[in-house]
Order: sequence, then C-alpha cells, then structure tokens
Amino acid sequence: MTITKHDIRRGAYYDSVVLMQLQRGLIGLPGVIDAGVVMATPANRELLAANDLLPDSVTASPDDLLIVVKAANEDSVQNAMGQIDELLAKRKSSTVSQDFRPRSLSGAVKQLPEANWVLISVPGRYAAGVAREALELGKHVFLYSDNVSLDDEIALKKMAREKGLLVMGPDCGTAIINGIGLGFANHVRRGSIGVVGASGTGTQAVTVQVHNRGAGISHAIGTGGRDLKSDVGAITANQALDLLARDPETKVIALISKPPSPDVATQLISAAQRTGKPVVIYFIGFPPPARKIGNLHFVISLSEAAEIAVELVNQKADVIKNLPMSGRYLRGLFSGGTLAYEALLGLQASLSPIYSNAPISSNQTIKDPLKSEAHTIIDLGDEFFMVGRLHPMIDNDLRVRRMRQEAADPEVGMILLDVVLGEGSHMDPASELAPVIKEVHDKKIEVVDIVIGTDDDPQNLESQIERLKDAGAIVFRTAAEAVEYISLRLGGSAANTYPSVNLEQLNKPLAAINVGLESFYESLTLQGAQAVHVEWRPPAGGNERLAALLAKMKK
Amino acid sequence: MTITKHDIRRGAYYDSVVLMQLQRGLIGLPGVIDAGVVMATPANRELLAANDLLPDSVTASPDDLLIVVKAANEDSVQNAMGQIDELLAKRKSSTVSQDFRPRSLSGAVKQLPEANWVLISVPGRYAAGVAREALELGKHVFLYSDNVSLDDEIALKKMAREKGLLVMGPDCGTAIINGIGLGFANHVRRGSIGVVGASGTGTQAVTVQVHNRGAGISHAIGTGGRDLKSDVGAITANQALDLLARDPETKVIALISKPPSPDVATQLISAAQRTGKPVVIYFIGFPPPARKIGNLHFVISLSEAAEIAVELVNQKADVIKNLPMSGRYLRGLFSGGTLAYEALLGLQASLSPIYSNAPISSNQTIKDPLKSEAHTIIDLGDEFFMVGRLHPMIDNDLRVRRMRQEAADPEVGMILLDVVLGEGSHMDPASELAPVIKEVHDKKIEVVDIVIGTDDDPQNLESQIERLKDAGAIVFRTAAEAVEYISLRLGGSAANTYPSVNLEQLNKPLAAINVGLESFYESLTLQGAQAVHVEWRPPAGGNERLAALLAKMKK
Repeated sequence: MTITKHDIRRGAYYDSVVLMQLQRGLIGLPGVIDAGVVMATPANRELLAANDLLPDSVTASPDDLLIVVKAANEDSVQNAMGQIDELLAKRKSSTVSQDFRPRSLSGAVKQLPEANWVLISVPGRYAAGVAREALELGKHVFLYSDNVSLDDEIALKKMAREKGLLVMGPDCGTAIINGIGLGFANHVRRGSIGVVGASGTGTQAVTVQVHNRGAGISHAIGTGGRDLKSDVGAITANQALDLLARDPETKVIALISKPPSPDVATQLISAAQRTGKPVVIYFIGFPPPARKIGNLHFVISLSEAAEIAVELVNQKADVIKNLPMSGRYLRGLFSGGTLAYEALLGLQASLSPIYSNAPISSNQTIKDPLKSEAHTIIDLGDEFFMVGRLHPMIDNDLRVRRMRQEAADPEVGMILLDVVLGEGSHMDPASELAPVIKEVHDKKIEVVDIVIGTDDDPQNLESQIERLKDAGAIVFRTAAEAVEYISLRLGGSAANTYPSVNLEQLNKPLAAINVGLESFYESLTLQGAQAVHVEWRPPAGGNERLAALLAKMKK
Repeated sequence: MTITKHDIRRGAYYDSVVLMQLQRGLIGLPGVIDAGVVMATPANRELLAANDLLPDSVTASPDDLLIVVKAANEDSVQNAMGQIDELLAKRKSSTVSQDFRPRSLSGAVKQLPEANWVLISVPGRYAAGVAREALELGKHVFLYSDNVSLDDEIALKKMAREKGLLVMGPDCGTAIINGIGLGFANHVRRGSIGVVGASGTGTQAVTVQVHNRGAGISHAIGTGGRDLKSDVGAITANQALDLLARDPETKVIALISKPPSPDVATQLISAAQRTGKPVVIYFIGFPPPARKIGNLHFVISLSEAAEIAVELVNQKADVIKNLPMSGRYLRGLFSGGTLAYEALLGLQASLSPIYSNAPISSNQTIKDPLKSEAHTIIDLGDEFFMVGRLHPMIDNDLRVRRMRQEAADPEVGMILLDVVLGEGSHMDPASELAPVIKEVHDKKIEVVDIVIGTDDDPQNLESQIERLKDAGAIVFRTAAEAVEYISLRLGGSAANTYPSVNLEQLNKPLAAINVGLESFYESLTLQGAQAVHVEWRPPAGGNERLAALLAKMKK
C-alpha cells in the first residue's frame, strides 16, 4: 500500500528550474515512489491525475504551488515532506561565476553598457513588463516567455518599431545573431544565408540542415509564432527582411512561418520581392503558389528550404528589376474550372483582396458572380451560369459580354482568359475573342491568355496563338507561367517607412542581459558572448495582492 | 430610342445549341441591336439585366424559355419576333450524315451493339435517368451533364461498381479512352501515362503538356468533380486506379483532383500505393505531404504533374515492396512545435483519423491533450503544458511519463519523438530518453526519432544518435524522411473487393452512343470512333406536368 500526501504554497514565485529540482530531489529520497511539483493550473492538475498523483480534495488556485509525494510508507512520506523547504532553498549553483549579480535591468545595463540585447524568460505574466523596460533602455528584446497576451505583443512591437528595435517573440525559441545562439540554437557555421523564422524548431531544423550541407548562417532572426497574424501585421518579420536585405553578408534569405493571414502574406511577399535577394519561402502547410515567382522560391518542407537556400547561394542571383504596377485590378474570366482554381491558388499569395465564385477559402467568396470586385477570378463554366447555355469552351458569348463589362470598370488593369482548344471546344475561339481583346487592349488594359492545346488539335494551335497575340494579348501555355507574370506585374505594396533597425550595431559582437532561465545566460557566456544575468524576482515575491498594494503605494 | 420586346415559351425543351442559334439568328436580323435567349433562371435573368435586356415585368419560371429582342425601331422588333418560330425550327445540319437516327437508347444499342460507352449531355434533370438506362444496358457512362444531384451520383456509381462499369461524371468534361477523346479533349499522342482526373481542364492541361513534352497518354479517365468527396467515396477514382494498375500499357499514373475529404485522401493514397506503379499526385490547393512517399510523387501544379510524369516514364520504377503494417496507431510526442506541425502535415495524407493539439484543420483537434486517440501528434511545448514547467527540450520528465502512458495502450504501434540538440537544450537527452525507448521497444512498439543537430553542437551528435539507436530507435535527421518512413509503415487500407472493370473491353476500339450535344457525336466520328447519335427528346417534350401524368399512366 502506498501513501500520498500534499502541500500547498500559496501565491509564491519559484522559477521552473527550482520546481524541477525539487521534484527530482523528492523522487530521490528513500521510500519515495513518485512526486509532482506543479503550479496548480487545470492542465497541471490533470497531468498529476494522469500520473495518479492528484490528491482527492485539494483547493489550490493556478498561482499556488502544489507539491505531492507518493511513498511506500508513512515514514518516507513524512521525511520527504519535511525536506521540502531545504530542497527549495538549495539552488543549483551556476557553472559560470559572476561576482556581482544585479537585481534589476537598469543595474545590469550599468554593469554591461554595451549590451544590445535583453533575453527574457520570466513567467508570461511578468514578461511584457520586463520587455517594456528593456525597450525603454534602448535594447533589442529576445522574448522566450510564452503566455504573453496578444495586446502586449502588439504594443511592444509597435513601441520597438518606432525606436528601430527588434522584439523577437513572445514564445520565440530560437535566434542566431552574429554567430551567437539565443535560446535554443544549434552550433552552425557562419555564412551567407539569413533566416527569418516565426517558428523556433523550424529555424533550428533549417539552420542545422544549412550547416550539414556545408553552408552557413549570417543571422537567424526569430519573430514569435503570432507575428504573421493580421493583428500583429508581421512587424518583426518586416524589420528582419529589411535588415537582411541591407546586410552585405546575407546573399540568400529563408523565410519560415506557419501560414500567415492572407493580407499579411501578400504584404510580406511584396517585402520579400523588394529585398532584391533570392528569398526561399516556406509557409508551413500552405500550398505553394508556384515554385518560383521572380526572386521568390517556394518550398514544401524544412529540408527543402535548406536545400534550395544552399543551392541559391552558389547561383548568380536572378533579380527581377521589373517593378510592380500600381494596384490596378485583375479580372480572370475562365472557361475551365480547374484552370480558374489553379490561377487563384497561385495569385492569392500576391494579390489581395481577391474574390471568386470558385474560392479556395470562404473569405474569397464573391458576393455576386455577375459583379467583380477588387481582384476577381470567375469560372464561367460553373453550374450557376450553365442552365440552358452552352459551355463557355463552345460559346464565347457570355465571356465576350463580360470582358466588355470589365473593361468599362476604371479600376481594371488586366484581364486574364483561358483558351482551351481540342475536341469538343469551339473550332475557332480566336475569331470570337480577338476582336474584343483588341477593344480591351486599346483601352490600355493588359490581356493575358493561357492557351491549352497541342499541335495536333483541330483548331491549329499556332494560328490561334498568332491571332490572339496580334490582337494584343500576352500568351502563356501554362497557368503557372501566367501566375508568375501576373504576380510580378500586379503584386506588391508600399514599403514601410518606419525607422530601420541599425545594421551596424547588429553586426557588432553580441552582448546581452539575461532575465529568467539561468541556463540561457550560461549558454551565452560559453559561446563567448558578453553577458550579465539579472537576479530577477517578481514584484512582492510573486504575491499578486501584495504587488497590487505596492503598485498603489508608489502612485 | 430603342425598343425591347419579349416572348415566353412555357415549359418547353430546347437544347442549348438551338438556343444559341436562335440568339445569334435574332442578332443577325436587320435593325436588331441585341438579343437574349435563356431559360428564365434567376442567374440568367440577372445576366439579361446586366446586358440591359431584362423586360420590366416578366413572370417566367426557370423552366420557361425567355426571348428578348432589342431593336432600333418598332418594325425591326416586330419582324424579329415574327421569325422566332422559323429560327427555332431550323436546326443546324449535322456535318456528319447518319441515315437513321434512333430516338431511344435501346434503339441505338440495336444499331450499334458493340457500343461500350454512352455519352450523356442532356440537361441535368434528365441526365440521371438516361445514365441509369445506360448502366442497365451494360454500358460505361460519360456523364457531361451538370446540375445532377449528389444522391443520383452516388446511386449511379454504386450501381455501376456492382456491374464493373464506370460512371465518369456528372460534370465530367474530359476523358481520353483508348485514343479517343470524349467531351472536351485534346489530340495527344498515345503513350504510357495514364490519368485519373476529377477535373476536366486539369486533365486537359496535363495531357496537353505530356504531349508537348514528347510523351503520350494511355487512358485519361474522368471522375467528375465530386467523386472524391466523402459521400461518393471516390468510387470512380478507385476503379480507375485499379484499371490503370492492371493496364500493361500504363507505366506511370497521374492523379489530379481538388483536395479530397481527409478519409478519402488516405484511402486513395493507399490505393495509389497498391498500384505498384509510379503515381504523380496533384491535390490542387492541398499542401503536398512530401515530394515523394515510396512510389507516390506529390506536385504543386498541373505543369509539374506533367513534367514529373514524363520524367518517371523514363526512369526504372522504384517500387516499394515493403507492405504496410496493419492499422496500429502512431503517437508523436514532440518538443518542437514546428516539427510536430510538419510531421502532422506530412502524415495527415496517409494516416486517418489523426488528432493533435496543434491541428492543421479543426477536425483534427484533440479532445484532451492528455489522452491520445487513434493517430495522435502532441506538441509538449505548447503553452497548455508550460505553466511553471521547463520546456521539454530541457526537461524530459513530461515526455518520459507520456511515453510510458502510450506504451500501455495496446492500440499503439509506433512512438515518434523529436530530439533537438544545440545551445539551450538538455546537454544529454539520450541519457533520459534511451532507457524508456528500450522499455517501449521491448514491448514491440517501434520508436522513431527525428534528431536535429550539427556535428558542432555541444551534445556530441554522433554519440546521441548512437545511444538512441542502441536503445532500439530508428533515427532520421529530418522530419521529411521520418514522414516517408511512417507513411509506408502505418499507412494503407484494405483493397476494394468490388467487381473490376473489364480491361480488355476498355482496350478495344471505342464505340459509343451519344445522347445530348450533337457536337460530341461529330467529334467522335471525326476521330474515327464508331458512334450513334440518339435523337433524344425529354419525356412529354419537357412539359413536367404532362411527363408526370404519363409516368402515372404507365404504372
């Protein structure tokens, strides 16, 4: 028979290293079978239950420390419970000596004025406050802490942007600045590939594989996982792209993130185009719009991101000088549903907003298929149009009328058509389309045609293409080529006009102040970086009521 | 001033060619400015309005024919309206002579008993009936008609499957059977690439590009756009894959579709694996799980589908003999969020159902992150687990406990871990993981590890890998490689046991009966296929009330 006892420390702060050490210390005691030492959050209580460690009735709040010991007999339990205070007091001694430990950020800055970074890994509820203080002191922030609110993230990043500072995070696991790894980072060769990573292990996997393939990293800048959401607007990712664009050591950029919000994606893709350097983009889980759009290369895995980045380092950069047109709208009028869908799939990355009657995501659904808005892709072969009517591959009447309707809209800059030849289709589509293409082209609207056909088709492919071109159309033979052309012509948005981050300072030897996990401090010094660890404690020792009282008294 | 008049023909059937010809005939008359001839559906009325052709007040139902003429003066309008009947009576004369035209399917079969196909392009509401009749007569069906209900589609396909017959469609635009194009199809070289296409223009684009790259097509089998939805369960696509697997002329298969339902995707991927031939898969708009999983090659565009298929024709097939294990579950326990996400992204194509606390689609959300179900991928670094606890890259306690929990579940066949080395991480993760890996491995549960690290990392990469392997783990260095391995080990489902479609018959010269658009009949005969066109009219001339009455009298 086993005996389980528990103890609760109300509202006290202990860092997670101390908790781990206490748990291991308890498990190591004679007769102890298992032990749990957790903040009493619902998740942690469930975890205790899963390990058969949750006491029957316990009233503890998420801010309380819950300590449970299971032992073979009463004596062992009593002995273990009696040693809790001693174990809590015993802190792991640092492997790196530091004679004087400041207790505040400002104290640390006095000790290491050249520090350009502050690493923050205190519990989430305190992290934003520490980050704000760091920004006020003019330091870049590496914010490892999770459980930081979205509002705090936005406020911190806007503040940083105004000051030309970076906030990497919250929940930023990994960065490599100037050869020094922050947080979780692998030892990789220095080199000419810059990484912008909204994902910690994504950045680790890519930098590792770049190294394993013989190349190296200039800087790997983390952004935190929420940076590319609409609310945050990719503030850090934009700063990072701009930095790496200006950094002469960086020849190729890799941008790694979970799928961004559509508006952020188009904005960021446009920023990536403006870097003028080859950019490898991996939006994890998002179907790539193409293999390549100008200087952008889209990949489908972390390994492939590394592989292509390394290949591009050794290639002569193929920079597109061709600057984007200013925001005039595309109207795609398709006879083929799949061609419409594939075009939308490719264009959605660069053109925003874009609507369709064959949408990929529901927010692309067009209100009225008969009225285009912004960028629009219409499948004219959709059932909606087809009652009692011949398919638009056979009869161009509907499409000809719609082309004229679009051309009358002053916001339209380009019309995209597919022309599908072969058995069953109209025997001479150019005869119907060319005159209206000419009309539209004369109004300074570009017409792009995707012609699908073979040299054996009954329509005479060559003469069809010839006549479409004579009418002014630009002709491609695949949707993929048309997508690349249109993305480069119509994509793009204005550049940011915020203060840029100081590149020269970034390229100076890294010096940092560490607040939170001591192991990050140790890691910095072992890598040869100058660092100071702050002996941080939360206000009022983590007692929220007392802290509130203190804050009141300060006023 | 212009004058607009209209006429309504209530509940009468005209095929869409006749309507197009009437409209063009009217526009060609003296003084006529524009004309509209449409079935009075809401969509068509809106289209008339967009062309300034909708009469002010008109009461017509979607089954009524609405004829509108706009002319320069009263005389011209009157003249045009007076010619409607004559124009309606004048049918385009066929370019191919056919002495006797049967008026029914059974009549056509008597005339061409060797016909193995029936092409159906009558209006949607009649199409299912004609298709049923064709199946009863033992013929394969090419169902071009749209606006056919999902219930009818399912019933027709189930009926066909029992008989070893194919139903391509509804809304199937394109097929190439034995060198003959059905519906919309390009003239392409015969060759060794077989296509299964749930998308008409997708099939056209791929077959065209295969031809343009110098290769050819064995058969291109259409399925209709809804075949890969859960409700239909890819009945036709499965039959088609099975056919092409057995066809000795087909060396490489291309499978083109919009993203299938997840359950259908895993089933179909497993069927594609069983073909033992290289299969190029393009699920349009779905992020590819990998470049390659065994004999399956995933691509990101129609052009790439053709490109890779042609490349594979010339390669010695790299067939995986390694047969799948029988449905035991995977449990992935990750410290890296992005690694978890990328693994899920790759595995979701082959393993179903799969759940996660970092889901890609909402139906993958795990109910309780503490309890795995079916295949499960858990990110143990998620905020949920992180309050007051060290990150699982530093402290393996949570993961070790969870591994034991999973190993106690008799449904578990494999445990997947990431082991991320480098600065900040645990200095010797193998010391904590290897003992429990051995425990798990001794229970006949496979352990797969993804180790992320470089030879410069402080942990000694080589010795870490060595110790994990010694404990029984299979070690990969990228998530992509682990995904391929696991998909081949755990993916797969039972083969169908329905009657197979007769391959020998499919490879006989195509002979067909055409019901609907005459142009499809003409196209068949011009391609040298034997064909009979049915002079089809809907029951009771399209008058629904009369048709219902007739049906009643038959009983």
